Amino acid sequence: MDVRKEYLSLNYKKVEKHLISSSKSAFKRRGFTGAVIGISGGIDSAVVLCLLSKALGVENVYSFFMPYKSTSRKSFEDANLVAVHAGVTLTKIDITESVDSYFKNELNPIRMRIGNKCARERMSILYDRSFKHSALVVGTSNRSEIVMGYGTQFGDLACALNPLGDLWKTQIFLLAESMGIPGVIIKKKPSADLWENQTDEGEMGISYREIDAIAYLYFEKGYVTEQINKLGYSYKKINVVLTAYERNEFKRQMPFIIKVNSNKFKGE
Amino acid sequence: MDVRKEYLSLNYKKVEKHLISSSKSAFKRRGFTGAVIGISGGIDSAVVLCLLSKALGVENVYSFFMPYKSTSRKSFEDANLVAVHAGVTLTKIDITESVDSYFKNELNPIRMRIGNKCARERMSILYDRSFKHSALVVGTSNRSEIVMGYGTQFGDLACALNPLGDLWKTQIFLLAESMGIPGVIIKKKPSADLWENQTDEGEMGISYREIDAIAYLYFEKGYVTEQINKLGYSYKKINVVLTAYERNEFKRQMPFIIKVNSNKFKGE
Repeated sequence: MDVRKEYLSLNYKKVEKHLISSSKSAFKRRGFTGAVIGISGGIDSAVVLCLLSKALGVENVYSFFMPYKSTSRKSFEDANLVAVHAGVTLTKIDITESVDSYFKNELNPIRMRIGNKCARERMSILYDRSFKHSALVVGTSNRSEIVMGYGTQFGDLACALNPLGDLWKTQIFLLAESMGIPGVIIKKKPSADLWENQTDEGEMGISYREIDAIAYLYFEKGYVTEQINKLGYSYKKINVVLTAYERNEFKRQMPFIIKVNSNKFKGE
Repeated sequence: MDVRKEYLSLNYKKVEKHLISSSKSAFKRRGFTGAVIGISGGIDSAVVLCLLSKALGVENVYSFFMPYKSTSRKSFEDANLVAVHAGVTLTKIDITESVDSYFKNELNPIRMRIGNKCARERMSILYDRSFKHSALVVGTSNRSEIVMGYGTQFGDLACALNPLGDLWKTQIFLLAESMGIPGVIIKKKPSADLWENQTDEGEMGISYREIDAIAYLYFEKGYVTEQINKLGYSYKKINVVLTAYERNEFKRQMPFIIKVNSNKFKGE
Protein backbone atom coordinates (compact mmCIF):
# COMPACT_ATOMS: atom_id res chain seq x y z
CA MET A 1 0.00 0.00 0.00
CA ASP A 2 1.34 3.42 -0.89
CA VAL A 3 0.10 5.35 2.11
CA ARG A 4 1.27 8.74 1.02
CA LYS A 5 -0.33 8.45 -2.40
CA GLU A 6 -3.62 7.70 -0.70
CA TYR A 7 -3.94 11.07 0.99
CA LEU A 8 -1.79 13.17 -1.32
CA SER A 9 -3.56 12.31 -4.57
CA LEU A 10 -6.29 14.89 -4.53
CA ASN A 11 -7.72 17.08 -7.23
CA TYR A 12 -6.23 20.28 -5.82
CA LYS A 13 -8.10 22.51 -8.26
CA LYS A 14 -11.31 21.19 -6.75
CA VAL A 15 -9.93 21.54 -3.22
CA GLU A 16 -9.08 25.17 -3.94
CA LYS A 17 -12.58 25.87 -5.29
CA HIS A 18 -14.09 24.23 -2.22
CA LEU A 19 -11.98 26.30 0.18
CA ILE A 20 -12.85 29.52 -1.64
CA SER A 21 -16.58 28.87 -1.69
CA SER A 22 -16.61 27.62 1.91
CA SER A 23 -14.73 30.74 3.01
CA LYS A 24 -17.26 32.89 1.17
CA SER A 25 -20.16 31.14 2.89
CA ALA A 26 -18.51 31.40 6.31
CA PHE A 27 -18.04 35.15 5.93
CA LYS A 28 -21.61 35.60 4.72
CA ARG A 29 -22.96 33.56 7.63
CA ARG A 30 -21.04 35.70 10.10
CA GLY A 31 -22.04 38.91 8.32
CA PHE A 32 -18.54 40.09 7.44
CA THR A 33 -16.97 41.11 4.15
CA GLY A 34 -13.34 41.69 5.16
CA ALA A 35 -10.50 39.46 6.36
CA VAL A 36 -7.42 40.14 8.46
CA ILE A 37 -4.45 37.80 7.95
CA GLY A 38 -0.97 37.62 9.43
CA ILE A 39 1.67 36.92 6.77
CA SER A 40 4.90 35.24 7.86
CA GLY A 41 6.53 34.60 4.53
CA GLY A 42 5.70 30.91 4.88
CA ILE A 43 3.60 28.67 2.70
CA ASP A 44 0.47 28.42 4.88
CA SER A 45 -0.21 32.14 5.15
CA ALA A 46 0.62 32.49 1.45
CA VAL A 47 -2.04 29.94 0.54
CA VAL A 48 -4.60 31.47 2.91
CA LEU A 49 -3.94 34.95 1.55
CA CYS A 50 -4.52 33.82 -2.04
CA LEU A 51 -7.65 31.86 -1.13
CA LEU A 52 -9.20 34.78 0.75
CA SER A 53 -8.27 37.27 -1.95
CA LYS A 54 -10.18 35.14 -4.41
CA ALA A 55 -13.09 34.61 -2.01
CA LEU A 56 -13.56 38.23 -0.90
CA GLY A 57 -11.67 40.36 -3.44
CA VAL A 58 -8.22 41.83 -2.79
CA GLU A 59 -9.68 45.11 -1.56
CA ASN A 60 -11.31 43.27 1.36
CA VAL A 61 -8.19 41.54 2.60
CA TYR A 62 -5.89 43.22 5.13
CA SER A 63 -2.54 41.52 5.49
CA PHE A 64 0.07 42.15 8.18
CA PHE A 65 3.70 41.28 8.61
CA MET A 66 4.65 41.57 12.29
CA PRO A 67 8.36 41.06 12.83
CA TYR A 68 10.20 40.80 16.13
CA LYS A 69 13.85 41.84 16.24
CA SER A 70 14.92 38.23 15.65
CA THR A 71 12.73 37.84 12.56
CA SER A 72 14.91 37.39 9.50
CA ARG A 73 15.12 39.92 6.69
CA LYS A 74 14.41 37.01 4.36
CA SER A 75 10.99 36.53 5.99
CA PHE A 76 10.08 40.11 5.17
CA GLU A 77 11.16 39.69 1.56
CA ASP A 78 9.11 36.51 1.29
CA ALA A 79 6.07 38.11 2.92
CA ASN A 80 6.31 40.96 0.44
CA LEU A 81 6.62 38.55 -2.44
CA VAL A 82 3.51 36.74 -1.26
CA ALA A 83 1.51 39.96 -0.88
CA VAL A 84 2.54 41.22 -4.31
CA HIS A 85 1.68 37.83 -5.79
CA ALA A 86 -1.79 37.98 -4.24
CA GLY A 87 -2.22 41.65 -5.11
CA VAL A 88 -2.87 42.61 -1.49
CA THR A 89 -1.35 45.54 0.41
CA LEU A 90 0.95 44.38 3.22
CA THR A 91 1.25 46.43 6.41
CA LYS A 92 4.35 45.98 8.54
CA ILE A 93 4.01 46.31 12.30
CA ASP A 94 7.13 45.77 14.38
CA ILE A 95 6.30 44.10 17.71
CA THR A 96 9.76 44.39 19.26
CA GLU A 97 9.05 47.38 21.48
CA SER A 98 5.80 45.95 22.87
CA VAL A 99 7.29 42.55 23.57
CA ASP A 100 10.59 43.80 24.96
CA SER A 101 8.97 46.33 27.25
CA TYR A 102 7.37 43.35 28.99
CA PHE A 103 10.52 41.24 29.15
CA LYS A 104 12.83 44.00 30.33
CA ASN A 105 11.98 43.08 33.92
CA GLU A 106 12.38 39.34 33.38
CA LEU A 107 15.80 37.77 33.88
CA ASN A 108 16.92 35.76 30.85
CA PRO A 109 13.58 34.41 29.67
CA ILE A 110 14.11 31.27 27.58
CA ARG A 111 13.37 31.71 23.90
CA MET A 112 10.20 29.66 24.09
CA ARG A 113 8.67 32.31 26.35
CA ILE A 114 9.64 35.05 23.92
CA GLY A 115 8.30 33.06 21.00
CA ASN A 116 4.96 32.55 22.72
CA LYS A 117 4.74 36.21 23.73
CA CYS A 118 5.38 37.21 20.12
CA ALA A 119 2.71 34.84 18.84
CA ARG A 120 0.15 36.25 21.29
CA GLU A 121 1.15 39.83 20.50
CA ARG A 122 0.51 39.13 16.83
CA MET A 123 -2.89 37.63 17.61
CA SER A 124 -3.71 40.66 19.70
CA ILE A 125 -2.78 43.01 16.85
CA LEU A 126 -4.71 41.03 14.25
CA TYR A 127 -7.79 41.14 16.48
CA ASP A 128 -7.36 44.86 17.00
CA ARG A 129 -7.18 45.35 13.25
CA SER A 130 -10.18 43.12 12.71
CA PHE A 131 -12.14 45.41 15.03
CA LYS A 132 -10.87 48.51 13.25
CA HIS A 133 -11.81 47.17 9.82
CA SER A 134 -14.93 45.23 10.89
CA ALA A 135 -13.29 42.11 9.54
CA LEU A 136 -12.67 38.52 10.65
CA VAL A 137 -9.28 37.12 11.64
CA VAL A 138 -8.40 34.20 9.37
CA GLY A 139 -5.98 31.64 10.79
CA THR A 140 -3.31 29.69 8.97
CA SER A 141 -2.75 26.59 11.10
CA ASN A 142 -2.80 23.31 9.24
CA ARG A 143 -4.00 19.89 10.32
CA SER A 144 -0.50 18.57 11.01
CA GLU A 145 0.19 21.45 13.41
CA ILE A 146 -3.19 21.07 15.08
CA VAL A 147 -2.74 17.33 15.60
CA MET A 148 0.76 17.89 17.01
CA GLY A 149 -0.39 20.88 19.05
CA TYR A 150 2.42 22.77 17.35
CA GLY A 151 1.36 26.36 17.86
CA THR A 152 0.76 28.90 20.58
CA GLN A 153 -2.60 28.65 22.32
CA PHE A 154 -4.40 32.01 22.09
CA GLY A 155 -1.60 33.01 19.72
CA ASP A 156 -1.32 31.74 16.15
CA LEU A 157 -3.93 29.07 16.93
CA ALA A 158 -6.53 31.79 17.61
CA CYS A 159 -8.77 32.90 14.75
CA ALA A 160 -12.39 33.12 13.62
CA LEU A 161 -11.99 30.93 10.57
CA ASN A 162 -9.36 28.43 9.57
CA PRO A 163 -9.36 27.31 5.92
CA LEU A 164 -6.37 24.92 6.16
CA GLY A 165 -7.13 23.17 9.46
CA ASP A 166 -8.31 20.02 7.75
CA LEU A 167 -5.36 19.68 5.37
CA TRP A 168 -2.05 17.98 6.13
CA LYS A 169 1.07 20.04 5.58
CA THR A 170 2.19 17.74 2.77
CA GLN A 171 -1.18 18.29 1.06
CA ILE A 172 -0.69 22.05 1.37
CA PHE A 173 2.62 21.80 -0.50
CA LEU A 174 0.72 20.30 -3.44
CA LEU A 175 -2.19 22.72 -3.12
CA ALA A 176 0.25 25.64 -3.16
CA GLU A 177 1.90 24.29 -6.30
CA SER A 178 -1.44 23.86 -8.00
CA MET A 179 -2.38 27.43 -7.03
CA GLY A 180 0.82 28.83 -8.52
CA ILE A 181 2.32 30.09 -5.24
CA PRO A 182 5.94 31.20 -5.96
CA GLY A 183 8.35 28.27 -5.77
CA VAL A 184 10.69 30.00 -3.31
CA ILE A 185 7.85 30.07 -0.76
CA ILE A 186 6.98 26.43 -1.31
CA LYS A 187 10.58 25.22 -1.16
CA LYS A 188 11.76 26.92 2.02
CA LYS A 189 11.95 24.90 5.22
CA PRO A 190 8.78 25.36 7.32
CA SER A 191 9.56 27.53 10.34
CA ALA A 192 7.60 29.38 12.98
CA ASP A 193 10.48 31.89 12.73
CA LEU A 194 10.32 32.46 16.50
CA TRP A 195 14.12 32.43 16.68
CA GLU A 196 16.99 32.19 14.26
CA ASN A 197 17.36 28.96 12.29
CA GLN A 198 14.27 27.48 13.91
CA THR A 199 12.61 24.83 11.80
CA ASP A 200 9.33 23.11 12.62
CA GLU A 201 10.74 19.69 11.89
CA GLY A 202 13.88 20.28 13.94
CA GLU A 203 11.84 21.41 16.90
CA MET A 204 9.31 18.60 16.73
CA GLY A 205 11.98 15.98 16.04
CA ILE A 206 10.07 14.51 13.10
CA SER A 207 9.37 15.44 9.49
CA TYR A 208 5.97 16.53 8.20
CA ARG A 209 6.19 13.61 5.79
CA GLU A 210 6.29 11.26 8.77
CA ILE A 211 3.77 13.17 10.89
CA ASP A 212 1.22 13.17 8.11
CA ALA A 213 1.60 9.50 7.25
CA ILE A 214 1.47 8.36 10.88
CA ALA A 215 -1.43 10.65 11.79
CA TYR A 216 -3.33 9.70 8.65
CA LEU A 217 -2.97 6.00 9.40
CA TYR A 218 -3.86 6.41 13.06
CA PHE A 219 -6.68 8.93 12.93
CA GLU A 220 -8.25 8.43 9.51
CA LYS A 221 -7.63 4.75 8.88
CA GLY A 222 -7.88 3.67 12.52
CA TYR A 223 -4.64 1.65 12.40
CA VAL A 224 -3.00 0.55 15.65
CA THR A 225 0.67 1.26 16.26
CA GLU A 226 1.77 -2.26 15.25
CA GLN A 227 0.16 -1.85 11.84
CA ILE A 228 1.73 1.56 11.36
CA ASN A 229 5.12 0.16 12.35
CA LYS A 230 4.81 -2.63 9.77
CA LEU A 231 4.44 0.03 7.09
CA GLY A 232 7.91 1.29 7.90
CA TYR A 233 7.42 3.89 10.66
CA SER A 234 9.46 3.40 13.83
CA TYR A 235 7.75 3.11 17.20
CA LYS A 236 9.81 6.09 18.27
CA LYS A 237 8.33 8.28 15.56
CA ILE A 238 4.82 6.95 16.10
CA ASN A 239 5.27 7.80 19.74
CA VAL A 240 6.38 11.35 18.96
CA VAL A 241 3.08 11.95 17.15
CA LEU A 242 0.76 10.27 19.64
CA THR A 243 2.46 11.81 22.68
CA ALA A 244 2.32 15.31 21.20
CA TYR A 245 -1.31 14.75 20.27
CA GLU A 246 -2.33 13.77 23.78
CA ARG A 247 -0.14 16.26 25.63
CA ASN A 248 -1.62 19.14 23.64
CA GLU A 249 -5.26 18.12 23.74
CA PHE A 250 -6.02 21.25 25.79
CA LYS A 251 -5.10 23.45 22.84
CA ARG A 252 -7.99 21.97 20.86
CA GLN A 253 -10.57 22.59 23.55
CA MET A 254 -12.43 25.46 25.17
CA PRO A 255 -11.47 26.24 28.80
CA PHE A 256 -12.62 23.60 31.25
CA ILE A 257 -15.57 24.89 33.28
CA ILE A 258 -16.31 23.25 36.62
CA LYS A 259 -19.96 22.23 36.52
CA VAL A 260 -22.22 23.09 39.42
CA ASN A 261 -25.40 21.04 39.48
CA SER A 262 -27.70 23.41 41.30
CA ASN A 263 -30.15 20.65 42.25
CA LYS A 264 -27.41 18.99 44.21
CA PHE A 265 -26.72 22.18 46.17
CA LYS A 266 -30.29 23.34 46.76
CA GLY A 267 -31.14 24.74 50.17
CA GLU A 268 -29.82 27.58 52.30
CA MET B 1 -43.14 31.71 41.61
CA ASP B 2 -40.14 33.39 43.13
CA VAL B 3 -37.69 32.89 40.28
CA ARG B 4 -34.70 34.40 41.96
CA LYS B 5 -35.11 32.33 45.08
CA GLU B 6 -35.09 29.23 42.93
CA TYR B 7 -31.53 29.67 41.70
CA LEU B 8 -30.12 31.78 44.50
CA SER B 9 -31.02 29.46 47.38
CA LEU B 10 -28.02 27.21 47.37
CA ASN B 11 -25.95 25.78 50.15
CA TYR B 12 -22.92 27.92 49.37
CA LYS B 13 -20.69 26.10 51.86
CA LYS B 14 -21.26 22.96 49.81
CA VAL B 15 -20.75 24.85 46.56
CA GLU B 16 -17.42 26.14 47.86
CA LYS B 17 -16.29 22.65 48.87
CA HIS B 18 -17.29 21.32 45.46
CA LEU B 19 -15.34 24.03 43.61
CA ILE B 20 -12.26 23.43 45.75
CA SER B 21 -12.26 19.67 45.28
CA SER B 22 -13.06 19.95 41.56
CA SER B 23 -10.20 22.41 41.12
CA LYS B 24 -7.88 20.03 42.92
CA SER B 25 -8.90 17.15 40.64
CA ALA B 26 -8.52 19.26 37.52
CA PHE B 27 -4.98 20.23 38.47
CA LYS B 28 -4.08 16.67 39.30
CA ARG B 29 -5.51 15.42 35.99
CA ARG B 30 -3.45 17.97 34.07
CA GLY B 31 -0.35 17.24 36.17
CA PHE B 32 0.12 20.73 37.59
CA THR B 33 0.46 21.98 41.15
CA GLY B 34 0.53 25.75 40.64
CA ALA B 35 -2.01 28.34 39.49
CA VAL B 36 -1.62 31.76 37.86
CA ILE B 37 -4.47 34.22 38.39
CA GLY B 38 -5.08 37.80 37.32
CA ILE B 39 -6.51 39.91 40.15
CA SER B 40 -8.57 42.97 39.21
CA GLY B 41 -9.88 44.01 42.60
CA GLY B 42 -13.30 42.69 41.64
CA ILE B 43 -15.38 39.98 43.25
CA ASP B 44 -14.85 37.18 40.70
CA SER B 45 -11.07 37.13 40.87
CA ALA B 46 -11.28 37.48 44.67
CA VAL B 47 -13.43 34.36 44.91
CA VAL B 48 -11.23 32.42 42.47
CA LEU B 49 -8.08 33.41 44.36
CA CYS B 50 -9.51 32.19 47.66
CA LEU B 51 -10.79 28.95 46.15
CA LEU B 52 -7.46 28.14 44.53
CA SER B 53 -5.48 29.06 47.63
CA LYS B 54 -7.52 26.52 49.53
CA ALA B 55 -7.28 23.93 46.77
CA LEU B 56 -3.52 24.18 46.11
CA GLY B 57 -2.05 26.00 49.11
CA VAL B 58 -1.13 29.70 49.06
CA GLU B 59 2.48 28.93 48.15
CA ASN B 60 1.30 27.46 44.84
CA VAL B 61 -0.79 30.41 43.74
CA TYR B 62 0.76 33.26 41.73
CA SER B 63 -1.44 36.33 41.55
CA PHE B 64 -0.96 39.34 39.29
CA PHE B 65 -2.38 42.83 39.16
CA MET B 66 -1.83 44.29 35.70
CA PRO B 67 -2.89 47.93 35.53
CA TYR B 68 -3.09 50.13 32.47
CA LYS B 69 -2.67 53.88 32.93
CA SER B 70 -6.46 54.30 33.12
CA THR B 71 -6.83 51.66 35.86
CA SER B 72 -7.99 53.31 39.06
CA ARG B 73 -5.87 53.53 42.20
CA LYS B 74 -8.87 52.06 44.00
CA SER B 75 -8.57 48.86 41.95
CA PHE B 76 -4.99 48.41 43.13
CA GLU B 77 -6.02 48.90 46.75
CA ASP B 78 -8.81 46.38 46.34
CA ALA B 79 -6.54 43.88 44.61
CA ASN B 80 -4.08 44.21 47.48
CA LEU B 81 -6.82 43.74 50.02
CA VAL B 82 -7.93 40.58 48.24
CA ALA B 83 -4.39 39.18 48.09
CA VAL B 84 -3.73 39.92 51.74
CA HIS B 85 -7.07 38.35 52.63
CA ALA B 86 -6.16 35.19 50.72
CA GLY B 87 -2.59 35.21 52.02
CA VAL B 88 -1.12 35.23 48.52
CA THR B 89 1.71 37.43 47.22
CA LEU B 90 0.50 39.87 44.58
CA THR B 91 2.82 40.91 41.76
CA LYS B 92 2.10 44.17 39.95
CA ILE B 93 2.92 44.40 36.26
CA ASP B 94 2.10 47.66 34.50
CA ILE B 95 0.99 47.05 30.90
CA THR B 96 0.86 50.69 29.81
CA GLU B 97 4.16 50.74 27.96
CA SER B 98 3.48 47.53 26.02
CA VAL B 99 -0.03 48.57 25.04
CA ASP B 100 0.79 52.17 24.21
CA SER B 101 3.82 51.29 22.12
CA TYR B 102 1.38 49.50 19.82
CA PHE B 103 -1.21 52.28 19.74
CA LYS B 104 1.25 55.14 19.22
CA ASN B 105 0.90 54.67 15.47
CA GLU B 106 -2.89 54.39 15.54
CA LEU B 107 -4.95 57.56 15.21
CA ASN B 108 -7.46 57.95 18.05
CA PRO B 109 -8.36 54.32 18.66
CA ILE B 110 -11.75 54.06 20.35
CA ARG B 111 -11.62 52.91 23.94
CA MET B 112 -13.07 49.51 23.11
CA ARG B 113 -9.96 48.73 21.07
CA ILE B 114 -7.71 49.79 23.94
CA GLY B 115 -9.77 47.75 26.39
CA ASN B 116 -9.50 44.64 24.24
CA LYS B 117 -5.76 45.12 23.72
CA CYS B 118 -5.31 45.41 27.49
CA ALA B 119 -7.33 42.25 28.11
CA ARG B 120 -5.22 40.30 25.60
CA GLU B 121 -1.98 41.73 26.97
CA ARG B 122 -2.99 40.50 30.42
CA MET B 123 -3.79 37.04 29.06
CA SER B 124 -0.44 36.99 27.31
CA ILE B 125 1.38 37.88 30.55
CA LEU B 126 -0.53 35.32 32.61
CA TYR B 127 0.35 32.64 30.08
CA ASP B 128 3.99 33.70 30.12
CA ARG B 129 4.00 33.44 33.90
CA SER B 130 2.26 30.09 33.79
CA PHE B 131 5.10 28.85 31.58
CA LYS B 132 7.72 30.32 33.90
CA HIS B 133 6.16 28.73 36.99
CA SER B 134 4.93 25.52 35.31
CA ALA B 135 1.44 26.46 36.40
CA LEU B 136 -2.05 26.66 34.90
CA VAL B 137 -3.89 29.90 34.13
CA VAL B 138 -7.16 30.00 36.05
CA GLY B 139 -9.91 32.18 34.59
CA THR B 140 -12.49 34.23 36.43
CA SER B 141 -15.37 34.59 33.96
CA ASN B 142 -18.80 33.78 35.35
CA ARG B 143 -21.81 32.22 33.68
CA SER B 144 -23.61 35.55 33.23
CA GLU B 145 -20.64 37.00 31.34
CA ILE B 146 -20.24 33.85 29.26
CA VAL B 147 -23.93 33.79 28.30
CA MET B 148 -23.81 37.49 27.39
CA GLY B 149 -20.45 37.10 25.65
CA TYR B 150 -19.27 39.92 27.90
CA GLY B 151 -15.52 39.49 27.77
CA THR B 152 -12.61 39.67 25.35
CA GLN B 153 -12.09 36.59 23.22
CA PHE B 154 -8.51 35.31 23.71
CA GLY B 155 -8.29 37.88 26.51
CA ASP B 156 -9.99 37.47 29.87
CA LEU B 157 -12.07 34.61 28.43
CA ALA B 158 -8.89 32.58 27.84
CA CYS B 159 -7.74 30.17 30.53
CA ALA B 160 -7.05 26.51 31.26
CA LEU B 161 -9.61 26.14 34.01
CA ASN B 162 -12.63 28.20 34.96
CA PRO B 163 -14.13 27.53 38.41
CA LEU B 164 -16.96 30.12 38.18
CA GLY B 165 -18.15 29.56 34.62
CA ASP B 166 -21.25 27.68 35.74
CA LEU B 167 -22.35 30.20 38.37
CA TRP B 168 -24.49 33.27 37.77
CA LYS B 169 -23.07 36.57 38.96
CA THR B 170 -25.83 36.93 41.55
CA GLN B 171 -24.92 33.50 42.92
CA ILE B 172 -21.29 34.59 43.16
CA PHE B 173 -22.32 37.53 45.36
CA LEU B 174 -23.80 35.05 47.83
CA LEU B 175 -20.90 32.61 47.50
CA ALA B 176 -18.46 35.46 48.22
CA GLU B 177 -20.43 36.42 51.32
CA SER B 178 -20.47 32.85 52.54
CA MET B 179 -16.71 32.62 51.96
CA GLY B 180 -16.06 35.76 53.96
CA ILE B 181 -14.69 37.87 51.11
CA PRO B 182 -14.30 41.47 52.38
CA GLY B 183 -17.57 43.42 52.08
CA VAL B 184 -15.99 46.30 50.18
CA ILE B 185 -15.14 43.89 47.34
CA ILE B 186 -18.62 42.41 47.29
CA LYS B 187 -20.40 45.74 47.38
CA LYS B 188 -18.56 47.61 44.63
CA LYS B 189 -20.20 47.92 41.23
CA PRO B 190 -18.98 45.19 38.87
CA SER B 191 -16.64 46.70 36.29
CA ALA B 192 -14.19 45.41 33.70
CA ASP B 193 -12.25 48.58 34.62
CA LEU B 194 -11.25 49.04 30.97
CA TRP B 195 -11.89 52.76 31.24
CA GLU B 196 -12.88 55.20 33.94
CA ASN B 197 -16.33 54.79 35.47
CA GLN B 198 -17.07 51.77 33.32
CA THR B 199 -19.63 49.44 34.84
CA ASP B 200 -20.66 46.09 33.39
CA GLU B 201 -24.33 46.84 33.82
CA GLY B 202 -24.04 50.29 32.26
CA GLU B 203 -22.27 48.88 29.26
CA MET B 204 -24.61 45.94 28.75
CA GLY B 205 -27.70 48.05 29.39
CA ILE B 206 -29.15 45.57 31.85
CA SER B 207 -28.52 44.53 35.45
CA TYR B 208 -27.03 41.19 36.48
CA ARG B 209 -30.22 40.63 38.47
CA GLU B 210 -32.19 40.76 35.24
CA ILE B 211 -29.64 38.89 33.12
CA ASP B 212 -29.54 36.01 35.57
CA ALA B 213 -33.31 35.70 35.96
CA ILE B 214 -33.98 35.89 32.22
CA ALA B 215 -31.12 33.55 31.29
CA TYR B 216 -32.10 31.10 34.04
CA LEU B 217 -35.70 30.97 32.84
CA TYR B 218 -34.73 30.68 29.21
CA PHE B 219 -31.79 28.27 29.34
CA GLU B 220 -32.41 26.21 32.45
CA LYS B 221 -36.20 26.17 32.65
CA GLY B 222 -36.78 26.25 28.90
CA TYR B 223 -39.33 29.09 29.10
CA VAL B 224 -40.32 30.95 25.95
CA THR B 225 -40.17 34.73 25.88
CA GLU B 226 -43.92 35.14 26.51
CA GLN B 227 -43.65 33.17 29.74
CA ILE B 228 -40.62 35.17 30.87
CA ASN B 229 -42.44 38.40 30.09
CA LYS B 230 -45.43 37.32 32.21
CA LEU B 231 -43.07 36.99 35.16
CA GLY B 232 -42.32 40.71 34.93
CA TYR B 233 -39.39 41.00 32.52
CA SER B 234 -39.85 43.34 29.57
CA TYR B 235 -39.45 42.07 26.03
CA LYS B 236 -36.77 44.71 25.60
CA LYS B 237 -34.68 43.22 28.39
CA ILE B 238 -35.32 39.65 27.29
CA ASN B 239 -34.15 40.71 23.86
CA VAL B 240 -30.96 42.24 25.25
CA VAL B 241 -30.00 38.87 26.72
CA LEU B 242 -30.96 36.68 23.78
CA THR B 243 -29.41 38.98 21.19
CA ALA B 244 -26.12 39.19 23.09
CA TYR B 245 -26.17 35.42 23.53
CA GLU B 246 -26.53 34.76 19.81
CA ARG B 247 -24.26 37.53 18.58
CA ASN B 248 -21.41 36.26 20.75
CA GLU B 249 -21.78 32.55 20.11
CA PHE B 250 -18.34 32.56 18.42
CA LYS B 251 -16.69 33.39 21.74
CA ARG B 252 -17.87 30.07 23.15
CA GLN B 253 -16.51 28.02 20.28
CA MET B 254 -13.20 26.88 18.86
CA PRO B 255 -12.19 28.44 15.51
CA PHE B 256 -14.30 27.23 12.60
CA ILE B 257 -12.29 24.83 10.44
CA ILE B 258 -13.38 24.29 6.86
CA LYS B 259 -13.78 20.54 6.39
CA VAL B 260 -12.23 18.86 3.40
CA ASN B 261 -13.67 15.43 2.69
CA SER B 262 -10.75 13.80 0.96
CA ASN B 263 -12.92 11.09 -0.62
CA LYS B 264 -14.80 13.79 -2.48
CA PHE B 265 -11.58 15.23 -3.88
CA LYS B 266 -9.75 11.99 -4.70
CA GLY B 267 -7.82 11.83 -7.98
CA GLU B 268 -5.04 13.88 -9.51
